[in-house]
Amino acid sequence: MKNFFQVTAPDDVIAMANDFSPVKMEKIPLNQAHGRVLGMDFISPEDLPGFTRATMDGYAVKASSTFGASESGPAFLTIAGSVTMGDVPGFSVGPGQAARISTGAMLPDGTDAVVMIEHTQVLDDTTIEAYKSVAPGQHVILSNEDIARDQPALTAGTDIRSQEVGLLAALGCEAVTVFKKPVVSIISTGDEIVAVGQPLPPGKIRDVNAYTLAGFVTDAGGEPVCLGIVEDDFDKMLAVCRQALSQSDMVLISGGSSMGTRDLTVQVLAALPDTEVLVHGISISPGKPTILARAGNQPFWGLPGQITSAMVAFTAVVRPFVDRLAGRTRHRREAFRLSARLTRNVASVQGRVDYVRVRLEKRDDGLWAEPILGKSGLISTMVKADGLVAIGMHVEGMEKGDPVDVIAL
Amino acid sequence: MKNFFQVTAPDDVIAMANDFSPVKMEKIPLNQAHGRVLGMDFISPEDLPGFTRATMDGYAVKASSTFGASESGPAFLTIAGSVTMGDVPGFSVGPGQAARISTGAMLPDGTDAVVMIEHTQVLDDTTIEAYKSVAPGQHVILSNEDIARDQPALTAGTDIRSQEVGLLAALGCEAVTVFKKPVVSIISTGDEIVAVGQPLPPGKIRDVNAYTLAGFVTDAGGEPVCLGIVEDDFDKMLAVCRQALSQSDMVLISGGSSMGTRDLTVQVLAALPDTEVLVHGISISPGKPTILARAGNQPFWGLPGQITSAMVAFTAVVRPFVDRLAGRTRHRREAFRLSARLTRNVASVQGRVDYVRVRLEKRDDGLWAEPILGKSGLISTMVKADGLVAIGMHVEGMEKGDPVDVIAL
Repeated sequence: MKNFFQVTAPDDVIAMANDFSPVKMEKIPLNQAHGRVLGMDFISPEDLPGFTRATMDGYAVKASSTFGASESGPAFLTIAGSVTMGDVPGFSVGPGQAARISTGAMLPDGTDAVVMIEHTQVLDDTTIEAYKSVAPGQHVILSNEDIARDQPALTAGTDIRSQEVGLLAALGCEAVTVFKKPVVSIISTGDEIVAVGQPLPPGKIRDVNAYTLAGFVTDAGGEPVCLGIVEDDFDKMLAVCRQALSQSDMVLISGGSSMGTRDLTVQVLAALPDTEVLVHGISISPGKPTILARAGNQPFWGLPGQITSAMVAFTAVVRPFVDRLAGRTRHRREAFRLSARLTRNVASVQGRVDYVRVRLEKRDDGLWAEPILGKSGLISTMVKADGLVAIGMHVEGMEKGDPVDVIAL
Repeated sequence: MKNFFQVTAPDDVIAMANDFSPVKMEKIPLNQAHGRVLGMDFISPEDLPGFTRATMDGYAVKASSTFGASESGPAFLTIAGSVTMGDVPGFSVGPGQAARISTGAMLPDGTDAVVMIEHTQVLDDTTIEAYKSVAPGQHVILSNEDIARDQPALTAGTDIRSQEVGLLAALGCEAVTVFKKPVVSIISTGDEIVAVGQPLPPGKIRDVNAYTLAGFVTDAGGEPVCLGIVEDDFDKMLAVCRQALSQSDMVLISGGSSMGTRDLTVQVLAALPDTEVLVHGISISPGKPTILARAGNQPFWGLPGQITSAMVAFTAVVRPFVDRLAGRTRHRREAFRLSARLTRNVASVQGRVDYVRVRLEKRDDGLWAEPILGKSGLISTMVKADGLVAIGMHVEGMEKGDPVDVIAL
């Protein structure tokens, strides 16, 4: 019984993600690109901003015209004209001259800097005094200072956030090549599972898993497709698994805390073409009875029926596979793990990674992680949780005050 | 010039959010609730799990039948029957008896604990030995241990994540009352702004702001509606502002780094009914020339035309207003600010909050925030940034190694 599972370490499971290929790409309008993953390096077709512009209201000058200027010895400059944003100045500015300019406007020929209006005084219609010298390039953005033409402005695999959309808009990109969203089929199994809208007979439970896992898939950037509840029957399960594989990039089958359902999943996998079981049990808790198979080029997961275990397994090992399929190369999420300190001692078992649910609390001396009490199977503990703390394989527990990384939930 | 703005501190601006009311509610299907905000306390209509269930495979017993059991002196128990998941046991279990039970199955009458199968040995068809005693409630989840009937399972204003969806599914909730998504109208102004798909004449810039702000609104849980580009013309701006106010819950008008456009915005606000300017300039950098008005019950923002300034202003002061309109009560985002240490000294100006763009770097000794070089107006600096560090009003700068909070971008 104890040796039924030849368990795999979670890091080894995650490493297997690289054996699968990212999904195909598609070209979509820029206003739908937010939240997607860039498919190809974006080489800038032009310089940005494309012309040298003022970053302050003031006077455009050749910087050398102001050298040595001070409160006591201002530079006297002759006004050669005026430029506002959107204009193309129809004149040039010589040494000893200046042009009125507003923020964002194009610098006239002959100028390379802007004196802030606060550092000037108007003497008459054609003359000003400048009280401060400026260096070449001061208070201006050069024509290619933001992005240079023919240079990669964004690299493939980048998450497209609002600012990446903004950059693409600035460069006139109306359509962008992104990875498709990985389609993830979700199947619930078990004779004891009842659809949420149905009356609940005694002893049965509702199909919590499909709803919950769909949310996790969405958060990871995938597209969930729920295929409903399948009873513990070989032929029915085989049929729905075939359907799932034909229409998606990854399959999640969950249910069967019982050994029987797990066995059935393995039998179905054996009957599918070009399929091999890669992992049968993972050294995580909760979430140990997780199965990973390769079905063609698709990861096929058998997740625990217990929803809290399935959530932890998803967070610990499934999400990196969604990242891989989605084409994501930099994992910002990793950088964004929070550091906190434990409010209490936490026991743990060596030889497996224990995932402890925590609630975050901001105190004057920093962030604290409060382990949530309650049995592992209670969904209410996941609702109370802000995140998970992983207690390493070789650790026997952690003490109050120990620093920990928190994975957001 | 210097006193044109009577600037307001950002905390005072944020406090004004409470003067606005959350948007109306709507009832939506549970499978669309992920990412929304719960509108009303959800009182549980039933106990969860609804029956006392086993959390392990093993034998259901009355705990007292095992008291004193050990390896050397096992308890002998008579098998009274067997229960699997989904079954209603048709028998009861007396003292000295046990029922085979699988994980998730309902405990028979007369039992209050489960002995794990690992701690038992089968002697014959009707008798087992138990080597370990169990306490009442051990390896079971009580009928109402997850959620009790008539108790609030979730409170109004909660962000509905995957696990909240799961909890609602578990309780048979097919439709849920949520706050509507606040509709946020986005208007770009300025004669120098050109639509992204149009040819770009010299000196003009593309409409970066609408695309970028739409992303920020979406991330904050709002629904962006882009009303396009309006030139610097009083009548046209008045017309589009009226339209915006009639169809949304908040208005963002951006553009006009120039004083002229800002003046125009203020004139338009003066011409709108029941409207007052609350804030004319905020002590943040970048983002200082931000205007906030109340138009009826709607916040109306004039954001800087410079997109990087607009992004900072949105993050610093606009987002809390979206939270307020969206009905959000707990700000998980606040708890999730990262602690990092600065990789370099950063200068700052007293009397305003400086927002520094940083890239995060995970090192062996923790998270480090690397300030991003480059002029404030470069959109590429926002693309390189993982987050913002706010350098407080009364601080003159921070030193390398100083701990800072990072706001995710």
